[in-house]
Amino acid sequence: MNTPQIGIIMGSNSDYPVMQQAEQFLQQFSIPYEIKVVSAHRTPDLMFEYAENARSRGLKAIIAGAGGAAHLPGMVAAKTTLPVLGVPIPSKYLHGEDSLMSIVQMPKGVPVATFAIGEAGAANAALFAIAMLANNNPQLAQKLKEFRENQRQNVLAMNLPSQPA
Amino acid sequence: MNTPQIGIIMGSNSDYPVMQQAEQFLQQFSIPYEIKVVSAHRTPDLMFEYAENARSRGLKAIIAGAGGAAHLPGMVAAKTTLPVLGVPIPSKYLHGEDSLMSIVQMPKGVPVATFAIGEAGAANAALFAIAMLANNNPQLAQKLKEFRENQRQNVLAMNLPSQPA
Amino acid sequence: MNTPQIGIIMGSNSDYPVMQQAEQFLQQFSIPYEIKVVSAHRTPDLMFEYAENARSRGLKAIIAGAGGAAHLPGMVAAKTTLPVLGVPIPSKYLHGEDSLMSIVQMPKGVPVATFAIGEAGAANAALFAIAMLANNNPQLAQKLKEFRENQRQNVLAMNLPSQPA
Amino acid sequence: MNTPQIGIIMGSNSDYPVMQQAEQFLQQFSIPYEIKVVSAHRTPDLMFEYAENARSRGLKAIIAGAGGAAHLPGMVAAKTTLPVLGVPIPSKYLHGEDSLMSIVQMPKGVPVATFAIGEAGAANAALFAIAMLANNNPQLAQKLKEFRENQRQNVLAMNLPSQPA
Amino acid sequence: MNTPQIGIIMGSNSDYPVMQQAEQFLQQFSIPYEIKVVSAHRTPDLMFEYAENARSRGLKAIIAGAGGAAHLPGMVAAKTTLPVLGVPIPSKYLHGEDSLMSIVQMPKGVPVATFAIGEAGAANAALFAIAMLANNNPQLAQKLKEFRENQRQNVLAMNLPSQPA
Amino acid sequence: MNTPQIGIIMGSNSDYPVMQQAEQFLQQFSIPYEIKVVSAHRTPDLMFEYAENARSRGLKAIIAGAGGAAHLPGMVAAKTTLPVLGVPIPSKYLHGEDSLMSIVQMPKGVPVATFAIGEAGAANAALFAIAMLANNNPQLAQKLKEFRENQRQNVLAMNLPSQPA
Amino acid sequence: MNTPQIGIIMGSNSDYPVMQQAEQFLQQFSIPYEIKVVSAHRTPDLMFEYAENARSRGLKAIIAGAGGAAHLPGMVAAKTTLPVLGVPIPSKYLHGEDSLMSIVQMPKGVPVATFAIGEAGAANAALFAIAMLANNNPQLAQKLKEFRENQRQNVLAMNLPSQPA
Amino acid sequence: MNTPQIGIIMGSNSDYPVMQQAEQFLQQFSIPYEIKVVSAHRTPDLMFEYAENARSRGLKAIIAGAGGAAHLPGMVAAKTTLPVLGVPIPSKYLHGEDSLMSIVQMPKGVPVATFAIGEAGAANAALFAIAMLANNNPQLAQKLKEFRENQRQNVLAMNLPSQPA
Repeated sequence: MNTPQIGIIMGSNSDYPVMQQAEQFLQQFSIPYEIKVVSAHRTPDLMFEYAENARSRGLKAIIAGAGGAAHLPGMVAAKTTLPVLGVPIPSKYLHGEDSLMSIVQMPKGVPVATFAIGEAGAANAALFAIAMLANNNPQLAQKLKEFRENQRQNVLAMNLPSQPA
Repeated sequence: MNTPQIGIIMGSNSDYPVMQQAEQFLQQFSIPYEIKVVSAHRTPDLMFEYAENARSRGLKAIIAGAGGAAHLPGMVAAKTTLPVLGVPIPSKYLHGEDSLMSIVQMPKGVPVATFAIGEAGAANAALFAIAMLANNNPQLAQKLKEFRENQRQNVLAMNLPSQPA
Repeated sequence: MNTPQIGIIMGSNSDYPVMQQAEQFLQQFSIPYEIKVVSAHRTPDLMFEYAENARSRGLKAIIAGAGGAAHLPGMVAAKTTLPVLGVPIPSKYLHGEDSLMSIVQMPKGVPVATFAIGEAGAANAALFAIAMLANNNPQLAQKLKEFRENQRQNVLAMNLPSQPA
Repeated sequence: MNTPQIGIIMGSNSDYPVMQQAEQFLQQFSIPYEIKVVSAHRTPDLMFEYAENARSRGLKAIIAGAGGAAHLPGMVAAKTTLPVLGVPIPSKYLHGEDSLMSIVQMPKGVPVATFAIGEAGAANAALFAIAMLANNNPQLAQKLKEFRENQRQNVLAMNLPSQPA
Repeated sequence: MNTPQIGIIMGSNSDYPVMQQAEQFLQQFSIPYEIKVVSAHRTPDLMFEYAENARSRGLKAIIAGAGGAAHLPGMVAAKTTLPVLGVPIPSKYLHGEDSLMSIVQMPKGVPVATFAIGEAGAANAALFAIAMLANNNPQLAQKLKEFRENQRQNVLAMNLPSQPA
Repeated sequence: MNTPQIGIIMGSNSDYPVMQQAEQFLQQFSIPYEIKVVSAHRTPDLMFEYAENARSRGLKAIIAGAGGAAHLPGMVAAKTTLPVLGVPIPSKYLHGEDSLMSIVQMPKGVPVATFAIGEAGAANAALFAIAMLANNNPQLAQKLKEFRENQRQNVLAMNLPSQPA
Repeated sequence: MNTPQIGIIMGSNSDYPVMQQAEQFLQQFSIPYEIKVVSAHRTPDLMFEYAENARSRGLKAIIAGAGGAAHLPGMVAAKTTLPVLGVPIPSKYLHGEDSLMSIVQMPKGVPVATFAIGEAGAANAALFAIAMLANNNPQLAQKLKEFRENQRQNVLAMNLPSQPA
Repeated sequence: MNTPQIGIIMGSNSDYPVMQQAEQFLQQFSIPYEIKVVSAHRTPDLMFEYAENARSRGLKAIIAGAGGAAHLPGMVAAKTTLPVLGVPIPSKYLHGEDSLMSIVQMPKGVPVATFAIGEAGAANAALFAIAMLANNNPQLAQKLKEFRENQRQNVLAMNLPSQPA
């Protein structure tokens, strides 16, 4: 069994349907990963411990999903120098605009790479993590290239229901 | 010298011109307080330590000012059961709307009492803390009542530059 | 029967499904409370009377929920020096952003402690009120600590549907 | 001296530079008016008294300017059945968007006629009040018509600095 | 049959479910009114004609509902000196925020009294029109007072599902 | 068969239900057109090629629909001097406000004509393209005039469910 | 002297500093144009007359700049089938977001091509109008191509103050 | 001289004062980099060429700053599988909210790591790129750790102008 290279964390299991998009891409690209519930507000010590040990445990990046006053990505970033990728989870009333603001507007000195609100953002956080790893893994870079090519082919194959006479 | 009852913290000394409004009211009401720079992102361990020891050190409430991805109030609240009061500091480009969202939209279970963006919010956080203390201090309750009465008198004494003929 | 320590008020019984979250926490912590419909715009005199007598009736804090042009928390705060906690009720078209603005942006001198839009905010207003009371009630402080510990355990026990191979 | 027909009120004398726009139009149309500082949050009883007596004192409408958590127009409307006109005063950080939301989003049953943020809104509140009075005052209706005609002429007379060759 | 005193207009019959709230109050207060579809963009000449003749036809105010780039209230106001009341109709994607901006932000010189987005706004526009008419109709003023009193009684009679033990 | 004069493109076939509104108007006015899926992010080279050849292939305008970080209209505009019309597709969480911002806020030098979010915008982009073609086609100008007249008649024929007694 | 092909209109001469950007491009491309102040709210009849006669006077497009409740472009579009291009003028408090909403969110059936807020939008409206005209003017198409090429060269020639060692 | 590992690009030299923050951190950490003006809209072919060759030229990541309809980061990401980091440049009227939306809301499949609006975002994009490189460079990881420690010390050394008596 391989040491996880990417850690996916989220504040609650209710965030899983969104974060699953990240997981699926890591699986598709055969990246060893781990996935856990870590809450900034309800398990702050666990969060700090997770962040603090992440590098020594062999992780190369952490993908953190959070909604509302979304503090998880930023606080993990405060406790590790690993790349931290933040995914704004859609919130009940503000549709994730609050989550986005809480994640992306980090102060100078402690970066969080932020992605789109919801499923697209979770998927892209994983693809970005893969791109990072691909910098030192030509085989992975090749797979990423093929993924893009497949994506291109899928668009080219799209048919529209109606066509001009 | 008295043990501080209220702790005022902020992420940077550049937040002081705003948070000074809180300090002035605590001084005016003779509430023993302390004031410190504690950064969620740059001094996360200090922040946790501060929050964890706050109750045993005799604090009754913590007023935390933060801007942008404003994590300080919420993370302090995650590490103490003391009342935590959050003040959104105006941010450079988004005028504190990001700070407000990051502070007020806390998840169920870990409350942060949030006040207005900027100076008014800092002042009101202090006045609210005083109101809390006044619940067990009739003299303070009386002073608060007088403050309100003075405030009323000040409005009544306001003159407008012009008057109808 | 105990004198209520916390008053929960709201502008209409249609706000009850949200404000019930506050009630449940007060019940869970055995805090004597009262709960009433008081409308800023439709029963302004009742509102003023409620606010004016709150302290002498033994209340220690008022939790006020309101939506849209949400004036209830701020006007109650104008008529009492007790701590007032405001809960933005989600509105039909603007999702509670209007409610939040109307509650949180109070002018210097009359504070309202504001919480998140909707259910989370109502729950947290109650938890914050409990934290205030706990300052003078070590047993309550202990219960609050246990609540947080349970909350932590609940997160730790969360399982995610899928796990990496 | 004539009994005032329109009451202009505002929460602070710092709102006067905006509300002055309303005053000037009432003067220009020779409408008897009064202008006062009445604060919803700092002089709530005065506000209620003002609203309650407005009709019997002969007022036909109240123009109320307020900023931030702008409760003055709505609370005055709760205490009188006279037409109440609200002017959102620009706020320091949110540019009056908070004021607008707090004034316009009134619940069913208690109307406030809302105008634009700032100077234009204050001017238009006065012009609207004049239009109301003009319904029973043909001379005033005529003056209003002439005002519009002058306004039209002013636009027609506008020159642009450059002209095509 | 009485001459209509209030004209209710809207850009499309799809706006009727909202504007019906205005109609119902005019009916309840026995105000003679008319109700029509008049579109700013699809029937501009009809709109101008309607506005131009409104005063001579005996109307005392026009209530105009419009959504999206909501030009109807403002353009009617440009063509009459009668009081014009605007109701922002909720729009499909922006929930009426676009409608509100298009109606409330009128330039100095041409006022539109704006009410809340949707049903509450339509109802309040009618109640405001009634308040205007009541200035010269003591019986109507009395009815309005009774309406408010009933409204108050309705709130007082509201029961909440649960009560503290 | 006629050479297409208008090209309709969109980033995904999931955008078709919105863009169909554009297609229907081109059909109704018998404008030769083509409709294709071209993705800015997934088929960038196809997009550039499409834009680059559009003029020589005889197109007179390109209607491009895109959602979220909606780059398609702007990038097509960067690669052709033909008129480019952008339609903001509603996005899952932000309702198309992101799409609108990404399309309309083009820098000086590379214009994109932007229309409303969603179906109305797609329809109007087509009608605008027809208006452009009508500048050199009196028959088409006449048809457009008739379309407007029909539209006017449709509004005039609208009945409201209820009428005043 | 040539018949104007493009009409530039704006609600006030205070909009000229923005709309001048449109004028300069029409001059640079030697497009005969006219430029006038036409106010939707203050000169509504002039506006209708202008729109109604525009086609017969030989105009090929109208560029209309307006701010706040910006009704000018949409109302002109309601009265002509010529292409209408809208430029949102920055407003005092809402920075042109109100202007943008009022212009872009037109209902199905009456299109307005909308451009960016402020100077960039005015410039691009002119460039878009030129692109429209270029469809039937190969020489103009060539000039537009050269303009783009110059623009490209200007970017290529940009130097950054610092360069890596 | 070293091959650049990081490419900093921006749409105009007017973006340099913001993007300079990224450059300074790369210099401080002795990361070989290049910095260029590449405009999505004015030099689209150069942009594609830059993106397409970036990997083979040895770049490990691209930092792209753009404002308004900010297409540069997303389009570069469409043409390379290298990690792309986007910095929203503050825009004249919308303060960078448009830039943020245009950059962060990328569709599934083509990721852009987004950072805060303005200077903080530019600085953090560089620090994030450094963190990526540090995954394979223990010396750099050590320097990053020291940078964080210095940052911590700077906060600890901050003095507040006033202190409680």
